[in-house]
Amino acid sequence: MEANIKSEKIAEEKARLEQQIRFIVEVDKVKNIIRQTYLADGKRKENDAEHSWHLALMAVLLKEHINEDVDLTKVMIMVLIHDLVEIDAGDTYAYDTEGAKTKQERETKAADRIFGLLPSDQGMYFRELWEEFEAYETAEAKYAHLLDNFQPILLNDASGGKSWAEHGVHRAQPCKRNERIPETSRIVWEKMQEIFHRHVEEGNLKE
Amino acid sequence: MEANIKSEKIAEEKARLEQQIRFIVEVDKVKNIIRQTYLADGKRKENDAEHSWHLALMAVLLKEHINEDVDLTKVMIMVLIHDLVEIDAGDTYAYDTEGAKTKQERETKAADRIFGLLPSDQGMYFRELWEEFEAYETAEAKYAHLLDNFQPILLNDASGGKSWAEHGVHRAQPCKRNERIPETSRIVWEKMQEIFHRHVEEGNLKE
Repeated sequence: MEANIKSEKIAEEKARLEQQIRFIVEVDKVKNIIRQTYLADGKRKENDAEHSWHLALMAVLLKEHINEDVDLTKVMIMVLIHDLVEIDAGDTYAYDTEGAKTKQERETKAADRIFGLLPSDQGMYFRELWEEFEAYETAEAKYAHLLDNFQPILLNDASGGKSWAEHGVHRAQPCKRNERIPETSRIVWEKMQEIFHRHVEEGNLKE
Repeated sequence: MEANIKSEKIAEEKARLEQQIRFIVEVDKVKNIIRQTYLADGKRKENDAEHSWHLALMAVLLKEHINEDVDLTKVMIMVLIHDLVEIDAGDTYAYDTEGAKTKQERETKAADRIFGLLPSDQGMYFRELWEEFEAYETAEAKYAHLLDNFQPILLNDASGGKSWAEHGVHRAQPCKRNERIPETSRIVWEKMQEIFHRHVEEGNLKE
């Protein structure tokens, strides 16, 4: 009897591992989802996996500049998974107003499929974290959005404003996109403003 | 007087943010450090940032299969930074015996420079985490090594053993490299064995 229970438990553990592996291999595809941001050296555009790695690392470093207390682990997991839906839905550029119209529907369907690969408890956990990120209400979601916005600004700055110039972006666009940053971090907001100002002067952002 | 203290504190916070940004932009280079492992689709080799993103995500998912209790946040940060030294030292392929001889010296020097960019408390924290990873003694380091070894095996498997075949790897090599995995997770070790066995049969790994 006990031996039966033990072998059942092992079979269950193995089944979970197989589901996890299927998910791990499936999300490898996010390495091929190309964003509009160039690497700091300006040589190529970055992909979602690289971007998410960068955000998780930044989450560790910039926590001291945030107004509210946050659960760091939760923020890290949130940023690691926040772009997985783009495997099916594709990357919607920040200033693509056409794409924005169908973004939510495309991404919800993607979340169903991708998080559905995992054992249900883990799939539900990731799904809820992704929805929390999208809702932009909790301290963790606000911090994750700050990171998600700040990182491409830093890379754009390092690469000489290349992506802004290519897309003919107006200063008002990143300002609007980042309008909620001051409630999370005054100092990061000021740094963003300083960068925008410099790139307007250099002609990479339109006034 | 109080106003002075306040403005000093703000100046210090700004100085820290500038150091953190310098580090964040510098480590962008890890996206150009190419590993020997192909993506699951076999189309190109992955880089260190993509690899580290994958490990951090796997850390969340596979914790249930590990023998010892681990501090998940610590493991995640460890895997996010474990390859940063390769920015200066380059990637040393797992079965490159020549490169292995100078690896430690090259990587220590790199750690001095790269972690030295950060405010000293944060630089020291990352440095210690990296050394803990390298020492392979704590439960967190053991789990991080399991992830670091298991991820390329899963990608190699998905891409049809491409990297093993190209390098003429013998089954004994990954077995030796992973000899400490059973002390961390029996089920992951068994899964590795199953994969190796299959690729020996398919002729991608030499017997």
